[in-house]
Amino acid sequence: MGKAGLPVSPLAPARFPDLPVIAGVEFASGAAGVKYQGRTDVTLIRIAPGASIAGAFTRSSTRAACVLDNQAKLTQGGDAPDGAAIIVNSGNANAFTGARGQESVDAVTAAVASATGVPASRVFSSSTGVIGEPLPHDRIVAITDDLAGALSQDGVAEAARAIMTTDTFPKGASATVAGDGGQIRITGIAKGSGMIAPDMATMLVYIFTDARISAPLLQQALSGHMDSTFNAITVDSDTSTSDALILAATGRSDAAEITSLDSGAGAGFTAALQQVMRELAHLVVRDGEGATKFVEVQVTGAETEADAQKVAMAIANSPLVKTAIAGEDANWGRIVMAVGKSGAKADRDLLTIRFGDMVLAEKGWRAPDYDEAAASAYMKNQNLLIAVDLGLGQGARTAWTCDLTHGYIDINADYRS
Amino acid sequence: MGKAGLPVSPLAPARFPDLPVIAGVEFASGAAGVKYQGRTDVTLIRIAPGASIAGAFTRSSTRAACVLDNQAKLTQGGDAPDGAAIIVNSGNANAFTGARGQESVDAVTAAVASATGVPASRVFSSSTGVIGEPLPHDRIVAITDDLAGALSQDGVAEAARAIMTTDTFPKGASATVAGDGGQIRITGIAKGSGMIAPDMATMLVYIFTDARISAPLLQQALSGHMDSTFNAITVDSDTSTSDALILAATGRSDAAEITSLDSGAGAGFTAALQQVMRELAHLVVRDGEGATKFVEVQVTGAETEADAQKVAMAIANSPLVKTAIAGEDANWGRIVMAVGKSGAKADRDLLTIRFGDMVLAEKGWRAPDYDEAAASAYMKNQNLLIAVDLGLGQGARTAWTCDLTHGYIDINADYRS
Repeated sequence: MGKAGLPVSPLAPARFPDLPVIAGVEFASGAAGVKYQGRTDVTLIRIAPGASIAGAFTRSSTRAACVLDNQAKLTQGGDAPDGAAIIVNSGNANAFTGARGQESVDAVTAAVASATGVPASRVFSSSTGVIGEPLPHDRIVAITDDLAGALSQDGVAEAARAIMTTDTFPKGASATVAGDGGQIRITGIAKGSGMIAPDMATMLVYIFTDARISAPLLQQALSGHMDSTFNAITVDSDTSTSDALILAATGRSDAAEITSLDSGAGAGFTAALQQVMRELAHLVVRDGEGATKFVEVQVTGAETEADAQKVAMAIANSPLVKTAIAGEDANWGRIVMAVGKSGAKADRDLLTIRFGDMVLAEKGWRAPDYDEAAASAYMKNQNLLIAVDLGLGQGARTAWTCDLTHGYIDINADYRS
Repeated sequence: MGKAGLPVSPLAPARFPDLPVIAGVEFASGAAGVKYQGRTDVTLIRIAPGASIAGAFTRSSTRAACVLDNQAKLTQGGDAPDGAAIIVNSGNANAFTGARGQESVDAVTAAVASATGVPASRVFSSSTGVIGEPLPHDRIVAITDDLAGALSQDGVAEAARAIMTTDTFPKGASATVAGDGGQIRITGIAKGSGMIAPDMATMLVYIFTDARISAPLLQQALSGHMDSTFNAITVDSDTSTSDALILAATGRSDAAEITSLDSGAGAGFTAALQQVMRELAHLVVRDGEGATKFVEVQVTGAETEADAQKVAMAIANSPLVKTAIAGEDANWGRIVMAVGKSGAKADRDLLTIRFGDMVLAEKGWRAPDYDEAAASAYMKNQNLLIAVDLGLGQGARTAWTCDLTHGYIDINADYRS
């Protein structure tokens, strides 16, 4: 069972991975009793002086106070000459809490600054849980000194557990890549199970690397991969008020500084970063509320990349497509529907639809060798590929989603009570 | 039980209404066995010479052959000096059927032209049912002469039943309004239960009036009301390949010709038309797949009307809002989330959220006299009002939706088989 009492997703990996230690990053987790009892619910992360920080945040116009605070701090640049810290609580989102929301952020980040010696302007914070309830920040402040005293390089797995809400398993991913003169390590953790959903299903992601890289270049690497990773997944098309990703580079690797993302070592680093981001994004989909199938939607042949994105997300978000997948029904007519409603340019007679390797429809018509039995058999797989070629141009995009099941209704129809 | 074996929606009206006869419009329904057995599945409608015809159709880029054919015919104008006809079948959508789709449309409309004496250019057609299967149009053609021989002014209720697919009840609405020198009558029927959904959930609407009105003015009246009626409802955010509305005016009323929609009688007519359109739209939501609650979403105070529309539809389409309603959970935090993700301009501190008459949230915070017990009690109603004021301007828009329940998953997770 996961921490919220839900059975572990059938799409979960067998175990939490071994994540490489990142020199200059320490973790401590504790139980503040923000809402949950009998489990950890606060994580403190300290990043050593000289780090670079980058971030990506929800575009919601009703963003939580901590998100607004993080964005304001990063607008001043991502350098952390005196170090940085991140404090995360689960159980309460501190969202739509009026002026009191910022007061809570100020109280928590001031306590962390005091306990760690990091300037408050470099203390980032996240809150995830119920919307609209005042955050009992005193409970977090009360354990801040204890957490600062317990910081350890080995605490990443504990941190991945403490930030969970309706997640049914902790999520981590890593990569190690050759730099110039030494290895570069990347370790990340994430929480989220209803991308991109409110309440307890917010997506939070923290990624650490020992690469030496300037803050602007780090931000460029991060921003460049968002569309192909976290912005390409969906569970229910809803958008959290609190989604946040923070990426910190400590510069403690033996490898030389990365000064370009196009060069050998820089290109290797950014590719490895994308891989870690994508793996974490996939883990969020694999923990999608009620999910029993992991679905890759590949769109090619669109007139533009924007059109490919529209089609991919229209398919990935369609309740009718997602319920058909839940029912293991090879209902490719619903793919045609989703292409049609996407707003992207499409020509019925140029459209090709594949499930796995099977061509189901082409040239505006069911494929001549369409085999209903084979298509139905394919739908029994846990991992599915839906591929659509629009036959119009070079625009391509891939999205990831899960099926829509009774489990989603169970989890969301009566979550608060 | 409805025709497809589903229990009748709890939101259905007690009975099918008595609809006024429209002089110059006749109906006949029959059983062609297109797919269903033991029920009617084809309706023929004949409209007397001298009528005006208007239409509105799905914007899907993968529109069905019959929709493309209707649009092409109406592009040549809506006058029907020699009369018009409409032929509708349920059980097969004739969508994504390649060049063969148009061949089927041609065969059916030619048979209707031959049986009724109406020119083929004024024979409109609709097909609703499974996508991607060839339409066995010979079965329809085979009963066309019989249908033409059975046409009657009193067949409207039978027609409302013959066009049903997953609908659990037939849908009709009417209005009678004073014209200059006589009454003007409007009668409409509709089918649809998964606005806006593919397969058997396509929305088809046929409205008839005895008003004397030119085709361009009739089209103007119809087009002006789409955004406040059929484009303001949603069950699952999906868009059919086949949605179609045809409006015919026979000019057989004693009332004088309507020459302006702003004048007394013209204004009365267009208001009555809007009422019939809205009533039919609401009936589609009330038959929403798995629906147990009918929800009105009122958005006011938006900077623009387009922003109000974005917010209304973001709320009405949100799976998290709709599952909370299914669970009778007054989860207003999910309304905040939906406002935030809508893309419309919003200011947290100016937002007011009401459920019925109760203010739940205002000034960026839970309302001071928020009463969880009263809010929860309100959610037990079958008809719900969710009102959001953005506090920014004069933009306003209302949308209608239903809840998202296990019933929706049951119906859609294994529909085809």
